[in-house]
Amino acid sequence: VVERLVVVGADAAGMSAAHQALRTAAARGRELEVLALERSGHTSYSACGIPYWVAGDVPSGDALVARTADQHRAAGIDLRLHTVVEAIDPAAGTVDLRDLSGGRTGGTGGTERVGYDHLLLATGAHPVEPAWARTADGEPVPGVHAVRSLDDGAVWLDRLTSTDRPPRTGVVVGGGYIGLEMAEAFLRRGLEVTLVTRGEVMGSLDPDLGARVREQLVAAGVTVVTGAEIDDLELDDGHSCCLAAGGRRFDADVVALGLGARPETELAAAAGLPLGDSGGLLPDDRQQLTAGPGDDWAGSIWAAGDCCESYTRLDGGRRGGIRVFVPLGTHANKQGRVAGENLAGGDARFGGVLGTAVTRFSGGGVTVEIGRTGPTSAQAAAAGYDVVSLVTESTTASGYMPEASPIAVKVLADRGTRRLLGVQLVGGPGTAKRVDLAAVAIWTSQTVDEVAGMDLAYAPPFSPVWDPVQIACRRLADRW
Amino acid sequence: VVERLVVVGADAAGMSAAHQALRTAAARGRELEVLALERSGHTSYSACGIPYWVAGDVPSGDALVARTADQHRAAGIDLRLHTVVEAIDPAAGTVDLRDLSGGRTGGTGGTERVGYDHLLLATGAHPVEPAWARTADGEPVPGVHAVRSLDDGAVWLDRLTSTDRPPRTGVVVGGGYIGLEMAEAFLRRGLEVTLVTRGEVMGSLDPDLGARVREQLVAAGVTVVTGAEIDDLELDDGHSCCLAAGGRRFDADVVALGLGARPETELAAAAGLPLGDSGGLLPDDRQQLTAGPGDDWAGSIWAAGDCCESYTRLDGGRRGGIRVFVPLGTHANKQGRVAGENLAGGDARFGGVLGTAVTRFSGGGVTVEIGRTGPTSAQAAAAGYDVVSLVTESTTASGYMPEASPIAVKVLADRGTRRLLGVQLVGGPGTAKRVDLAAVAIWTSQTVDEVAGMDLAYAPPFSPVWDPVQIACRRLADRW
Repeated sequence: VVERLVVVGADAAGMSAAHQALRTAAARGRELEVLALERSGHTSYSACGIPYWVAGDVPSGDALVARTADQHRAAGIDLRLHTVVEAIDPAAGTVDLRDLSGGRTGGTGGTERVGYDHLLLATGAHPVEPAWARTADGEPVPGVHAVRSLDDGAVWLDRLTSTDRPPRTGVVVGGGYIGLEMAEAFLRRGLEVTLVTRGEVMGSLDPDLGARVREQLVAAGVTVVTGAEIDDLELDDGHSCCLAAGGRRFDADVVALGLGARPETELAAAAGLPLGDSGGLLPDDRQQLTAGPGDDWAGSIWAAGDCCESYTRLDGGRRGGIRVFVPLGTHANKQGRVAGENLAGGDARFGGVLGTAVTRFSGGGVTVEIGRTGPTSAQAAAAGYDVVSLVTESTTASGYMPEASPIAVKVLADRGTRRLLGVQLVGGPGTAKRVDLAAVAIWTSQTVDEVAGMDLAYAPPFSPVWDPVQIACRRLADRW
Repeated sequence: VVERLVVVGADAAGMSAAHQALRTAAARGRELEVLALERSGHTSYSACGIPYWVAGDVPSGDALVARTADQHRAAGIDLRLHTVVEAIDPAAGTVDLRDLSGGRTGGTGGTERVGYDHLLLATGAHPVEPAWARTADGEPVPGVHAVRSLDDGAVWLDRLTSTDRPPRTGVVVGGGYIGLEMAEAFLRRGLEVTLVTRGEVMGSLDPDLGARVREQLVAAGVTVVTGAEIDDLELDDGHSCCLAAGGRRFDADVVALGLGARPETELAAAAGLPLGDSGGLLPDDRQQLTAGPGDDWAGSIWAAGDCCESYTRLDGGRRGGIRVFVPLGTHANKQGRVAGENLAGGDARFGGVLGTAVTRFSGGGVTVEIGRTGPTSAQAAAAGYDVVSLVTESTTASGYMPEASPIAVKVLADRGTRRLLGVQLVGGPGTAKRVDLAAVAIWTSQTVDEVAGMDLAYAPPFSPVWDPVQIACRRLADRW
């Protein structure tokens, strides 16, 4: 018996699942055919790399493609690009697809109904787009654009390197990862940059750490406007616009949207699949969707990546149950592997998310690195923890070395259990990836006392004798 | 009742203990006076920083001093420099000391017998010195020198920057951390450099990873001679010498000794305190020495730092019992704190050593970073593990980024339990400190499967989507 897996969306989650399913099926002697359907013309690319491509660090969009369509096909996957899934019938186990390729990519043309034994939804996420980003006719405002797909990247590159009316002023809307990275790209392209954000810069940090990032952006020459939302946009001459936010006005030749993403689950919703508060699908830790009492599709539908909510891993997963929407390639890859293994008969589990993330802003003579893992103080309090925390200043290398730059470490712990809950880092080169040691410690439910005693690496070019994260844990442990 | 703590050796371990003892005593309402005795004129300096001072990265020896004598005294410690302890009488609870300062440092001059309630031995380690490093008269051969104390550093700086007969050729004896760092310093000072080492370069790595380091040294222009020991030295003219190793001869204007260290425990041995195979003291995990049945000094003697052996932490400390000599500032600081807390009535434990270490070689256009934690393959096999291992090649950043440089990751696991045992890293900038995440995972007894699922940080300037250490764990986990 040959089973058929249909994968909707051929990026990180979908293609990780497809390859893992084939490996697991082969190892178990099961016959599996895989049909992967992708709306765009691209597969398996690094969305996170797009700002660096726009900034000029990456030579081409092709460089961001981890595996090409041909490489996927060589592994035995029937991959169809420019192919849209128009409907899913969970009860019948079919998808309706439409080939938009005009035959270019080996599609069959027109529409087709395909049956499946296993369906993997990996439809990703949409960038959040405010109403003012479109004209009254529903067309995108010229010069206003998100940064999500390779096509977006090409649009940005084209606009920023245009010799006809080259842009001089850029506004970045949103102070998160994409916002910082696009501010960097704009600076690198010689623009005057304004960043407008609803709260403090880097809302995934506690505000006191976010303020440190903001100070660095300002030092780099970025005009930072916090606590403001764009409430109106006026087009000037078809090439520039004027944004209004809380009574202030900002001229902009280009506007980058960095307002985050929302799950792309319209197809799933139309098929009657349950969605969470964020609009994301709700797979279990095997990445399988749970059918309701009246549903007859139990076990056949899987979901992975940015179209899903994930479980947080507070207290080593034991509290469990808190669903969050964290669209990120690392989770997409892991969830895809888990789904692929399970649907082919294996038994893998996705371990949950800590919200570990890093980024960098480098421009205007400033380099600031940012790392964070675990809940913020507000998130931890909302989850019922009695949070104790502390910010420590140290250096990334021994203070006497030329490599030494300042690093601020915020550590959060639970008063009752003394567990490390979260770590946030803001500092110079060498700061960001230190968050991984904290992520492993939180993943394994360590106390701050235990972290303070661990055998971490020291040599003068890399660390003070006590690593800054360890110093922070030790000082916090001494507090109570 | 005022208790007296006598600390022998005023570097990392001794002074960490002294300060912690005062803090703990104050918190517990105990009265403690601390007398700290130091043979040299320096306190609390970074021995690890000396090669960078010699290379010209650090402006002065003073910059390597973490806390000066005056700072220690301001905290209430009676610190006497240039003061040698000549004998310990454990039964009587006294030390005999001799003031060599001639009154310069506030010493009392001559000899003195001082009683103690608590004695902390923190006498450190000697550099290993081969017989050929001294003349027939027992004098040091000119130009041949170790790299351990601030005085050594001053000698090196003087010799390398001398305008009278500036050295042109340097031989480094030993291929470990100090050897690599002195090879870098010699290159930076314009010397032709030969490095001679008994085994492979970086004997703390598996030989296949050590060979990768060697290739980088050779690419940087260092002549590397492996599998050779210096068996003779001839003085040329009082300024240069010729070393012989297995039939080959090497001219050298200067020779750096990087042959490791041995515990400085002559004083303890003379007092009848038990020593391990390495010659190191044998404190328990509270850093307290265990008295034998006939001894009446039980409980009064403590030891910390490079004069001690430590316990390894294999299998989360549960196998325990394996004593090792790992002289390193990180352990000295932690052990000092543990000893200080306990002798003042607290209850702290030293958690053991994984052998976590990092270093860098940067010169001749090459930068190679090295990280390691846990046992090598040979050490793990000797400890009874059935070792499975794998080397994976990846990049330090996403492959398309300008920051990306190669990184090789060797992962060792135990076949039966699937536990991660050790990780070794050799690669470009961004490699070394990744070892910390592995150190936390080994410290907490994680399997390679668990590490493969953890939520580690990703952004294009810092990592591929899967961190290289995680890739290696995943691939190894897929092996069996």
